[in-house]
Amino acid sequence: MLDNPESLKVTTGALPGSRKIHVEGSRPDIRVAMREIDLEPSAEEPPVRVYDTSGPYTDPAAQVDITRGLPQIRRPWILARGDVEEYEGRAHKPEDDGLKPGEVIGVPVFDRQGLRPLRAKAGQVVTQMAYARRGIVTAEMEYVAIRENLRIAEARAAAERDGEDFGADIPDQVTPEFVRDEIARGRAIIPANINHPETEPMIIGRNFLTKINANIGNSAVASSVSEEVEKMVWSIRWGGDTVMDLSTGRHIHATREWILRNAPVPIGTVPIYQALEKVDGKAEDLTWEVFRDTLIEQCEQGVDYFTIHAGLRLAYIPLTAKRVTGIVSRGGSIMAKWCLAHHKENFLYTHFEDICEILKAYDVAFSLGDGLRPGSIADANDAAQFAELETLGELTKIAWKHDCQVMIEGPGHVPMHKIKVNVEKQLKLCGEAPFYTLGPLVTDIAPGYDHITSAIGAAMIGWFGTAMLCYVTPKEHLGLPDRQDVREGVVTYKLAAHAADLAKGVPASRERDDALSRARFQFRWRDQFNLSLDPDKALEFHDQTLPAEGAKVAHFCSMCGPKFCAYKISQEVRDMAAEQGMEQMSEKFRSEGGEIYKAEKPAAE
Amino acid sequence: MLDNPESLKVTTGALPGSRKIHVEGSRPDIRVAMREIDLEPSAEEPPVRVYDTSGPYTDPAAQVDITRGLPQIRRPWILARGDVEEYEGRAHKPEDDGLKPGEVIGVPVFDRQGLRPLRAKAGQVVTQMAYARRGIVTAEMEYVAIRENLRIAEARAAAERDGEDFGADIPDQVTPEFVRDEIARGRAIIPANINHPETEPMIIGRNFLTKINANIGNSAVASSVSEEVEKMVWSIRWGGDTVMDLSTGRHIHATREWILRNAPVPIGTVPIYQALEKVDGKAEDLTWEVFRDTLIEQCEQGVDYFTIHAGLRLAYIPLTAKRVTGIVSRGGSIMAKWCLAHHKENFLYTHFEDICEILKAYDVAFSLGDGLRPGSIADANDAAQFAELETLGELTKIAWKHDCQVMIEGPGHVPMHKIKVNVEKQLKLCGEAPFYTLGPLVTDIAPGYDHITSAIGAAMIGWFGTAMLCYVTPKEHLGLPDRQDVREGVVTYKLAAHAADLAKGVPASRERDDALSRARFQFRWRDQFNLSLDPDKALEFHDQTLPAEGAKVAHFCSMCGPKFCAYKISQEVRDMAAEQGMEQMSEKFRSEGGEIYKAEKPAAE
Repeated sequence: MLDNPESLKVTTGALPGSRKIHVEGSRPDIRVAMREIDLEPSAEEPPVRVYDTSGPYTDPAAQVDITRGLPQIRRPWILARGDVEEYEGRAHKPEDDGLKPGEVIGVPVFDRQGLRPLRAKAGQVVTQMAYARRGIVTAEMEYVAIRENLRIAEARAAAERDGEDFGADIPDQVTPEFVRDEIARGRAIIPANINHPETEPMIIGRNFLTKINANIGNSAVASSVSEEVEKMVWSIRWGGDTVMDLSTGRHIHATREWILRNAPVPIGTVPIYQALEKVDGKAEDLTWEVFRDTLIEQCEQGVDYFTIHAGLRLAYIPLTAKRVTGIVSRGGSIMAKWCLAHHKENFLYTHFEDICEILKAYDVAFSLGDGLRPGSIADANDAAQFAELETLGELTKIAWKHDCQVMIEGPGHVPMHKIKVNVEKQLKLCGEAPFYTLGPLVTDIAPGYDHITSAIGAAMIGWFGTAMLCYVTPKEHLGLPDRQDVREGVVTYKLAAHAADLAKGVPASRERDDALSRARFQFRWRDQFNLSLDPDKALEFHDQTLPAEGAKVAHFCSMCGPKFCAYKISQEVRDMAAEQGMEQMSEKFRSEGGEIYKAEKPAAE
Repeated sequence: MLDNPESLKVTTGALPGSRKIHVEGSRPDIRVAMREIDLEPSAEEPPVRVYDTSGPYTDPAAQVDITRGLPQIRRPWILARGDVEEYEGRAHKPEDDGLKPGEVIGVPVFDRQGLRPLRAKAGQVVTQMAYARRGIVTAEMEYVAIRENLRIAEARAAAERDGEDFGADIPDQVTPEFVRDEIARGRAIIPANINHPETEPMIIGRNFLTKINANIGNSAVASSVSEEVEKMVWSIRWGGDTVMDLSTGRHIHATREWILRNAPVPIGTVPIYQALEKVDGKAEDLTWEVFRDTLIEQCEQGVDYFTIHAGLRLAYIPLTAKRVTGIVSRGGSIMAKWCLAHHKENFLYTHFEDICEILKAYDVAFSLGDGLRPGSIADANDAAQFAELETLGELTKIAWKHDCQVMIEGPGHVPMHKIKVNVEKQLKLCGEAPFYTLGPLVTDIAPGYDHITSAIGAAMIGWFGTAMLCYVTPKEHLGLPDRQDVREGVVTYKLAAHAADLAKGVPASRERDDALSRARFQFRWRDQFNLSLDPDKALEFHDQTLPAEGAKVAHFCSMCGPKFCAYKISQEVRDMAAEQGMEQMSEKFRSEGGEIYKAEKPAAE
């Protein structure tokens, strides 16, 4: 545990070969951060522009001081809309941090410097969905349009379509108006609490780039405040689009404040975790009042989306009786216990409209939790899971009635042949609200490798239409992930999400693949590393066998050695072919209808 | 480089919680090795029987002495068929090991103790396909039937079918007669050179368990004999079904001899690599005579399958002219260079029937190489790739005419939406001969994580009908894999292959998943680790945060801590439900037609 704020150090600095750029929108205060990767002059190619989740931490020009927090770029936009008010806010209570009355907190506290929370003025709804439905294109919407679209500039419009999108509606160009329309229809969300103005807006929806979430958070057993803040910074460095703080130990409130004030990405939580801490871990002692108070506490702090397990109804619990792994969602098991202890309907369900009333005053998005998701291959797609999904569909419509933004959480553990129907059912039952899945893991037998078992399912479910993939680290089922596990999990999910975008045929999504492959073929090793999702690891792996600087320009690597490098020989083949007029041969071949069996037949015939 | 045979140590010892067992077939000399994992007494479950590729190295009862090699279990079977003869064999030449005449070899040489090679008697064909077509069920066929089938004993026959197999023909029980029929039809192969009698027979085909291959081999830059033998032992310990020796430096012959004499799994090679060494790395100096001599050398040593790039025809080379990554197969680029240098048709194509004549005298299986496989997403499924595949289909039929066993190599780099058509085309063009693919990688942008990008493609292509998956390690594109990379690659592919079996609905394939999930739910940590594909890593990851022995029986882990463990709460939910008669509630619920909306409606309605 750490003693003073000065020890709160986080990772900063540009990624190798990369520069932070800002693309300006229709007004000077809309400046969309992106990353450009410069290539070697010999490439004779422009820099490759990529989506950038890392915030100011990778910008050498930015002053990072986490005791002051990030610039509140969205605050002027929020205030300019004229529909919010500052207010005193809920008084902080010792139990918010798991303290007894009078007990002194054991971690540093972020100095809010008099900052007071905002909420909607009476009668106003301040959600992006409310604006979208009224035809208003917000600054946030314009920001995400530029962010989704211009990272690849004109390339996107010019790109040849190549993919199977299973009925998605992916545009050639993402316009602010398209963003507005998708949000109005409930097909996309911009998680953007008015009390978290530090976020660089991002969008989650099937017709946009596939996003990933990284979970962080301490548990009673391990981890400290400084580790958690660094984990957030670290996970967005590698590509996390949102971060969920799943802390369950003490100092939840204080830790979350540090995370929020320094997070340029949306932060999600599962409020029932903190509520349970407030009743000393006794699920049966939970009440709507404690939960409601916790929601307001977190709305005021700036949490951008809440996992709410309102779909787990009393009647569904018996459906889990014969499962191999029962209820594996933490929130789900807590609510099931409450329901049975009182033999009453889930209070998150009965109070769902009360929750909507709270969330719409801050624009906190719902992430409707799948408390009955399968925790094993045996339990996949069972009656309990799909019963809950039907209820989530019902709740989606209620939330939309309140102009609340909604996404739907999904499994879990599902064998490959049962993945697609999950997306189909979700789209149908939940009116195409964005789907947000955990994996799914496609087998149970590989603990220690569950980032991989789940990345297989994640890539597939992303392709089929899931909007955001919640990462799984190598430590899943075994323990709390550390820094390297977080990095491994984020990069693994980034590659799965990108594979999904390629397969969906997102225009120009192949640009980075092609740039990297050209670099590879031309032995521009530095470019190959720098274009990678994890340039540091690519370099490190290469250097394990060939550390000398000269190897960075060598026309081979240690995998095959100089004589057997297929790329090298292939270059020689091209040179020879050029002399022999291969291009013309190729043209001739094509002009003859591509008939390939004119040449000599094998001896057999 | 190593100086004496004594330093050739390999990894031995049982996997945690596991015992080697042998299931006897119709005769005492058919003893099929399997592994049984014992569970804690509290489980009240029988041991879990799993497929075992690791050979005698994990059998504490076996005497391992790699200077003597493994027992030649198949030799009596081979001799009893009466169709082979011992002969003097080709004289060993210095260039077999890359030595100049008179140069002394720098590595230890395996002492064959007078062992002479076998070949078919004049007029005989000794392939498993030839026997199968004559209606003969060989000992090898019976062995693989027991191996595929009885690992799960009666469970397989009793199992409920659950999967989508895309037209495969997976039986409830694998009988020796089914094996024979599949081999006769060319839909499966048993790679089993008569000069490699140390193998425990295994089968590769779409209607059997999905197999994986691990590549090992030194290159001119790195690795030594002792490392390569240990890599073979190491890769089969984790689940490699076959091993390809892709060595390209010096001492190829000597290294291979050590590997073969100690390998209980089929060994594959790419003979053109050694042939190229014999002509000092000059592709244009290759000749049919040098290649033929190399084939005989390797047939006599006992290599079980050869990658032969006979489908890369002169006319196809121009089709690669506009590719982003040209020709990325080493063998393919070598042959392309030869073709262009001489402006002649590929001699592997023109001499294809001569090659068949050689291979059928030893029962070496063809692995028809995809010299024009795509090396980038941009090049996937292009004209060059599919032109070659058509030729591979043509060659398959010629090989079958000679009773040669054949499998077909496949890509490579393919985005998800273009994977399935690869299998469909291959099955159609190549008469359902087993498909053997490298990945495919579903994106190019993650060097350092290409075991994962490729495992996504591998799991999918395995599901669609690919019979064997060639692993990719984290070092792919960057350098030569080391021990840990091999382990990471093998386990990753093992999980992908198993995911494919689950999705195909291989009967009872879910037994191990279910056993592990039950152990997980019941906090039998040791059982969970021992049932894992990599028990050592699962234990190590768990112990990083909770190393105490008591944590192995604790009802939580560090991921969520004691208060928030969903499994623990879920158990409590079950206890409460039991008191409340949840089973009856569930029965009542079901008997009422599963109507789930009888309970209280949310406040909204």
